[in-house]
Amino acid sequence: MKSEIIAVGSEMLTPYRQDTNSLYLTEKLNEIGVTVAFKTIVGDRRRDLVSSIRTALGRVDILIVMGGLGPTEDDLTREAMAEALGITLRRDASQVAALHARAATWRITMPDNNLKQADVLENAVVMPNANGSAPAQWIDTLYSGYRKLIMLVPGPPGECKPLFDAECMPRLREALPISFIAKRTLKAAMIPESQADKLLAPIYTTYEDVETTILAHGGDIQLTLLCSKPTLEEAQHRVDELASRMEEALDDWLYSSQGETLEQIVLYYLGLRQATLATAESCTGGLIAQRITAIPGSSRSFIGGAIVYSNEMKTLFADVPAELIEQHGAVSEEVAAALALGIRKRTGATIGLGVTGIAGPSGGTESKPVGLVYIAVTDGNRTDCMSRTFRGSRTRVREWASHQALDLVRRRLM
Amino acid sequence: MKSEIIAVGSEMLTPYRQDTNSLYLTEKLNEIGVTVAFKTIVGDRRRDLVSSIRTALGRVDILIVMGGLGPTEDDLTREAMAEALGITLRRDASQVAALHARAATWRITMPDNNLKQADVLENAVVMPNANGSAPAQWIDTLYSGYRKLIMLVPGPPGECKPLFDAECMPRLREALPISFIAKRTLKAAMIPESQADKLLAPIYTTYEDVETTILAHGGDIQLTLLCSKPTLEEAQHRVDELASRMEEALDDWLYSSQGETLEQIVLYYLGLRQATLATAESCTGGLIAQRITAIPGSSRSFIGGAIVYSNEMKTLFADVPAELIEQHGAVSEEVAAALALGIRKRTGATIGLGVTGIAGPSGGTESKPVGLVYIAVTDGNRTDCMSRTFRGSRTRVREWASHQALDLVRRRLM
Repeated sequence: MKSEIIAVGSEMLTPYRQDTNSLYLTEKLNEIGVTVAFKTIVGDRRRDLVSSIRTALGRVDILIVMGGLGPTEDDLTREAMAEALGITLRRDASQVAALHARAATWRITMPDNNLKQADVLENAVVMPNANGSAPAQWIDTLYSGYRKLIMLVPGPPGECKPLFDAECMPRLREALPISFIAKRTLKAAMIPESQADKLLAPIYTTYEDVETTILAHGGDIQLTLLCSKPTLEEAQHRVDELASRMEEALDDWLYSSQGETLEQIVLYYLGLRQATLATAESCTGGLIAQRITAIPGSSRSFIGGAIVYSNEMKTLFADVPAELIEQHGAVSEEVAAALALGIRKRTGATIGLGVTGIAGPSGGTESKPVGLVYIAVTDGNRTDCMSRTFRGSRTRVREWASHQALDLVRRRLM
Repeated sequence: MKSEIIAVGSEMLTPYRQDTNSLYLTEKLNEIGVTVAFKTIVGDRRRDLVSSIRTALGRVDILIVMGGLGPTEDDLTREAMAEALGITLRRDASQVAALHARAATWRITMPDNNLKQADVLENAVVMPNANGSAPAQWIDTLYSGYRKLIMLVPGPPGECKPLFDAECMPRLREALPISFIAKRTLKAAMIPESQADKLLAPIYTTYEDVETTILAHGGDIQLTLLCSKPTLEEAQHRVDELASRMEEALDDWLYSSQGETLEQIVLYYLGLRQATLATAESCTGGLIAQRITAIPGSSRSFIGGAIVYSNEMKTLFADVPAELIEQHGAVSEEVAAALALGIRKRTGATIGLGVTGIAGPSGGTESKPVGLVYIAVTDGNRTDCMSRTFRGSRTRVREWASHQALDLVRRRLM
């Protein structure tokens, strides 16, 4: 089944804002065997909107129009859909009552133009919007002789996503031919994309009935496996079989079999070992701590850390001897190790992590180029050190360095 | 002038990847008076691509097709454009030579299918791609009797953006009626969106010839002013006049008149005052330090900081007396002030910043709810403290708290 998503709103045709709802909707649609064949972004002009809707109805079976359901003059989705389908709008009495009730709850007088939100397309089913005033609509109709499923849903993500889950998905499941879809997400860290593909392509290409998507970003590889079968058991069996062969091939590059983030896995292992972590970051400047503390509950395993940008700070907060910095340079294996050992001892953590490097864009030398990063992890007895040279912008170097550091902690805890 | 951007690639119809080039292209197009009326995302299916191109040519004057210019079987933009326009492709001898030369530089044998990248549309001008093997194409042609400007550009951002700047923009400027566009970007921090609109709407609505866009995110308000006139002087004059009235209305909410980020402004003021900053972060967990250190050259003014998640760390790294925490609680004005004073003294920085709060989703109480954050800034003599309660997710609370903290530092330095 092919679908199209039309996002309505002139603000999404500026350089500043983008439709992101459609990523969520696509994920949900794929899970019930519906592919997204087109996405269209159109402004709040009625003529453009009508033409976009007609084009879409001419090429897909399922059409989702997001946005343009509010009370302002710019909100034209209802009117444009009526025009495109050649049908009328009727003001729904129960929706008018609902709008009045909502205004009363908020103790505001409802402006008259709000009432247009109660306009319903002929034969449409109203889908209640738990998080906003504009209700959504569901239409199961014929267009040029073909059956079309059409949904009008609100644009704000906080309204669109829960409404799509609660109202559209059950109706789509019921309307579509039954198929069962199984899904798995595997994740691996710091394996070069080409190497991952070399390891995995010979495996997944033999599973033509499983759709495998590989996404690489910031040192992370995410593999999504999707399979549709007449029964859930069959679909799950195929996905699990392919997943386990991929897991075996990825060996210890693999860190997650259920889609967790690397931060979550590090915190999971810390909890399992009843261990705690402290960080001393130079070039990553707090990025590693920030990623860990973004996870709720991280305070149970993450003690804290220091951002040791200057040499003095390295000595002050992680007891790195000034002579050591003098001798080897601030960006060196020795200083990374001393940072890890020092922050661990200072804070009483089980595990200490030290990172020092040159994030760029300037500050590199021939022997120590921009992108060179040293990372050390210690439990007080054994200290693992590594150096990597990452290419690209300051942002990219910091991103990859933080991912590599988290992965080194994970490997140490495994 | 109306334009459409078509992004080609099945990967952008998955839940995992999105077209982002179009934001950059939109910004550039707006600067020469071209609006983007539609954006379409289409997969690597020839039939879908041809239909998208035809639809676009029926409704806009300028069409940019991004992606699908590579050497694989999935790369069908050239073929689809030829079909849509009813013209032929010819293999360009100089492009074939260029591809061979490129392969020789990389010391690789060129596979035969690479040659399709040398296929050029009838009457198209080849635009060289400095960062990749697939050249771009420019076509100035009639379609159903109307003049259309068509560009085929590569999809990878590292190829698309520089090529668009170097090759497409000069051609567009030459082809379009002369108009001069002036642009300004103003930024304000922590002003509620409704208040900003109340202050500014009475002003900017009287400038109908200036297009004003307001974007709010994470405590930041960005205002973009764009004006097109027969001469640059006129356009600049109108934009500057409106900007200065808005600056006056925004008063000290305004932090940037030229589009800089809040981090950049804080670093600018620190440099100006020859001052240095150190941070002690609890609930923001390194986010503030990470934002500052993301800016190249920040090491000149940012000394470093501590992430003091536990009570012990607050004492260890920022000398907050254990009794003070006992008496007032870790989330309190007193502890925020002690963090700021302590980290300043410990590190020898000019300015100390302390942040403590409850990021959630759990850990709140009736008197200290989730989202409550205390922020303190000190120079050793005067300490400014404030408390805010931010609503929403852990991510949102941390984002707003970091923005508020940076803004408090800015106000202190002003």
